[in-house]
Amino acid sequence: MDLERIRHAGLRSRVTSARTAAQLIKNGMTVGMSGFTRAGDCKAVPAALAERARQDPLKITLITGASLGHDTDKLLTQADVLARRLPFQVDTTLRRKINQGEVCFIDQHLSETVEQLRSGHLKPVDVAIIEAAAIAEDGSLVPTMSVGNSASFVEQASVVIVEINESVPASIEGLHDIYLPDVRGLRQPIPLLKADQRIGSTTIAVDPAKIAAIVYTREPDSPSNALPPDAETDQIAGHIVRFLEGEVQAGRLTRSLLPLQAGIGTIANAVLHGFGEADFENLVMYSEVLQDSAIALLDSGKLAFASASSITVSQPVYERLLDNMAHYRDRLVLRPQEISNAPELVRRLGIIAINTALEFDIYGNVNSTHVGGTQMMNGIGGSGDFARNAHLSIFVSKSMAKGGDISSVVPMVAHVDHTEHDVDILVTECGLADLRGLAPRERARRIIANCVHPSYREALLDYFERACRRGGQTPHVLEEALAWHQRYEASGSMRTPGASTRRVA
Amino acid sequence: MDLERIRHAGLRSRVTSARTAAQLIKNGMTVGMSGFTRAGDCKAVPAALAERARQDPLKITLITGASLGHDTDKLLTQADVLARRLPFQVDTTLRRKINQGEVCFIDQHLSETVEQLRSGHLKPVDVAIIEAAAIAEDGSLVPTMSVGNSASFVEQASVVIVEINESVPASIEGLHDIYLPDVRGLRQPIPLLKADQRIGSTTIAVDPAKIAAIVYTREPDSPSNALPPDAETDQIAGHIVRFLEGEVQAGRLTRSLLPLQAGIGTIANAVLHGFGEADFENLVMYSEVLQDSAIALLDSGKLAFASASSITVSQPVYERLLDNMAHYRDRLVLRPQEISNAPELVRRLGIIAINTALEFDIYGNVNSTHVGGTQMMNGIGGSGDFARNAHLSIFVSKSMAKGGDISSVVPMVAHVDHTEHDVDILVTECGLADLRGLAPRERARRIIANCVHPSYREALLDYFERACRRGGQTPHVLEEALAWHQRYEASGSMRTPGASTRRVA
Repeated sequence: MDLERIRHAGLRSRVTSARTAAQLIKNGMTVGMSGFTRAGDCKAVPAALAERARQDPLKITLITGASLGHDTDKLLTQADVLARRLPFQVDTTLRRKINQGEVCFIDQHLSETVEQLRSGHLKPVDVAIIEAAAIAEDGSLVPTMSVGNSASFVEQASVVIVEINESVPASIEGLHDIYLPDVRGLRQPIPLLKADQRIGSTTIAVDPAKIAAIVYTREPDSPSNALPPDAETDQIAGHIVRFLEGEVQAGRLTRSLLPLQAGIGTIANAVLHGFGEADFENLVMYSEVLQDSAIALLDSGKLAFASASSITVSQPVYERLLDNMAHYRDRLVLRPQEISNAPELVRRLGIIAINTALEFDIYGNVNSTHVGGTQMMNGIGGSGDFARNAHLSIFVSKSMAKGGDISSVVPMVAHVDHTEHDVDILVTECGLADLRGLAPRERARRIIANCVHPSYREALLDYFERACRRGGQTPHVLEEALAWHQRYEASGSMRTPGASTRRVA
Repeated sequence: MDLERIRHAGLRSRVTSARTAAQLIKNGMTVGMSGFTRAGDCKAVPAALAERARQDPLKITLITGASLGHDTDKLLTQADVLARRLPFQVDTTLRRKINQGEVCFIDQHLSETVEQLRSGHLKPVDVAIIEAAAIAEDGSLVPTMSVGNSASFVEQASVVIVEINESVPASIEGLHDIYLPDVRGLRQPIPLLKADQRIGSTTIAVDPAKIAAIVYTREPDSPSNALPPDAETDQIAGHIVRFLEGEVQAGRLTRSLLPLQAGIGTIANAVLHGFGEADFENLVMYSEVLQDSAIALLDSGKLAFASASSITVSQPVYERLLDNMAHYRDRLVLRPQEISNAPELVRRLGIIAINTALEFDIYGNVNSTHVGGTQMMNGIGGSGDFARNAHLSIFVSKSMAKGGDISSVVPMVAHVDHTEHDVDILVTECGLADLRGLAPRERARRIIANCVHPSYREALLDYFERACRRGGQTPHVLEEALAWHQRYEASGSMRTPGASTRRVA
């Protein structure tokens, strides 16, 4: 245990066990915990809390940056600790309880959680549990691989528990840029004009008196579970790269494009990998999460700088980052998610936003969250923060799922997260639909022609044409609009039995 | 014809007839025209264009701020001039053609149109037609009762036609504050910190060489067609006022609240009238349109200042404004709609946004635009600009329409404009549902208990409970989700035949 990591000497006496620290959390409390897409989450105290709850039951509201690693959500769910959870999760066990209505899950735009805390719309955070690489002389915290909502949790909580993770090198200090907006009425513009600009401090300010416990850990972040690129994600990447090359040729973008955002997960990661081969230069990212692809683009020199709220990578990339932190620290910055995802900045900078759709419909409405319209998958995350205000709002999906039994393009999405107003470009491995400046009927023709798998194309075109005969700005055959989802629920496939569904147009 | 209104003497020779000016518009052009919710629209040239098109057919794309008065959209539709129309309209004749698929209507967030023009996502404006009260010494234009997108149209067009409206007093000069963001890469924060701040110029800059024609008119704006408050809108206003009074008591707001935005139309106008009786003081508005209610609150002293992009009022209020312009000019400001509706400012200032829903569902998703899910009514307007980033996003509706045959609260909206993520408070005459911090199932119980008309409450509760038995974060009985809309289409009523639908809970 390296006590030198606690540079505020008066705080060294607060070092304790995770078990003792977990006792600070009482039944009914709201707990704000670090962690954003598996990065920089707390490793010891939540596990100790779950352990304790088996003897001494308690319920809490848990707020994080985004998803957690280390099966924390699973452990807390199994110990029946979670009454409410926000704003994002990816855990199978927790997801089941959410969909059974046993845990209240508030699915939020990731930029909005701390605004709602600050406004009093949500009950305030009682206890903050924050992973840090070190505590500075003034008691302030050096975050680890994410910033998330940590700075606001610390500001609001009356009790702060710090987990010092010794596996994170002390050289990480300086990677972060902590800026929090003031309350309304006094608030100034966020002074950020470029992705690589620093506008705040490198550490999270804390009143040292609030630090009630410090726990030492050594465990690395859970590695990313994004899958490697495959033939279909390569095709999706190819469509996007060619489209952006066309924008450069048309003079609407330069070869440095505009700052890029890519959502979490396999497809978005694969799409960025595809930029490695393209004729772009001096790219920058202004995103919420950096995955392997971003680090690869940095290493190859295509990407000049990347700003985000977390770094979620595979184990080898994680180790390379930690081993060369001083090198990467000049090319990366991690910010509070309220800043990485700020609508103000997304519009000012003119972000090119690439996010994943679960399904989309013929008019370009996107479902990012609800399988079959009812079952929560993960949450909307930051996709709405970016899509609404982006220079270009791109959504990607494979054209089919479940071996072809699900078409990702449907007559009407069974749940809407992004309305057609916020969707400029749709891409599947089949092709890209550029929807800018089109009315809904024009959008439908282009989506059906370019994005739908050929084996579903005819059925969708038939639906659309029959809908048009009924009329409307956004024509639908209302009694059939959700029939594809119903058919999948009833028969295990969206395909019509007996129809010649394998015909290729 | 008062040529003194053209203070740039060199431009006086460009005065001509509307008919001659209309000749400047060629087939296939994109025309950007002033006008926002009937205010400050052009009166003579569009009518002359429609007249000409009867002999000499042509098609254009017409972009405005928002809706127009003087039956302009009707005249242009009847003359078959409109190929494409954006971003908003309210005309019955045009609406019919849109819903028949004969005019391509692009329904947009009102803050986004000029951003898309600037980015090249939309074809550039060829000709701008702008109503002005005067032309200044440097050729710049003094707008009339709206700003809308006029400054950007003028910037982009190579040909500018000005309609000088002599019925608007010259004393209107100074009412406006014209600020346009720079292109991306060079863009600074919008420096506005308070609703009453002025950050730009009082006139719209133009290169005088682009002014190809000046036409004189004398016609006032078409008066607002908002209906007077009634018993139900009074009840809605009462619920909102009591809710906000509760927020003041809880210490989350002061008695000056935060800047108010109210959508266009009867209900939003009536809600603001209700603020006249409430225990608030020194209110300010940061809205897109000011209606009669805003002027009444100004006159009574409740409202200290109002910022918007247009003023759309009844004839007596219009006359009072024009007759006392020097007085009102100090308490009002009109801005480009990109600034009045800027997401950056809506979040920074912490707007309380009150907008009208066509229908909403038990989870709080809102349909603002599509009757029966398919037929366009008016457009999304600025509701999304405000709802997404507001301090409080409030949507209002009467609980029923068509004499009770339509419930405004349905199992699933047949078209989504605002997802549950962007909706904090729902209000009907029956009551108010405060949805802050609630998970979807909790939202449903509160909406059904508080907002639904008693004669539909039992049926909705029954739907919700059966849906919950199927499970999910957002439970639905998919095959019944749109059945209420289908029933209305088939039978003229959402009520189930034979069911005891008049039971009052």
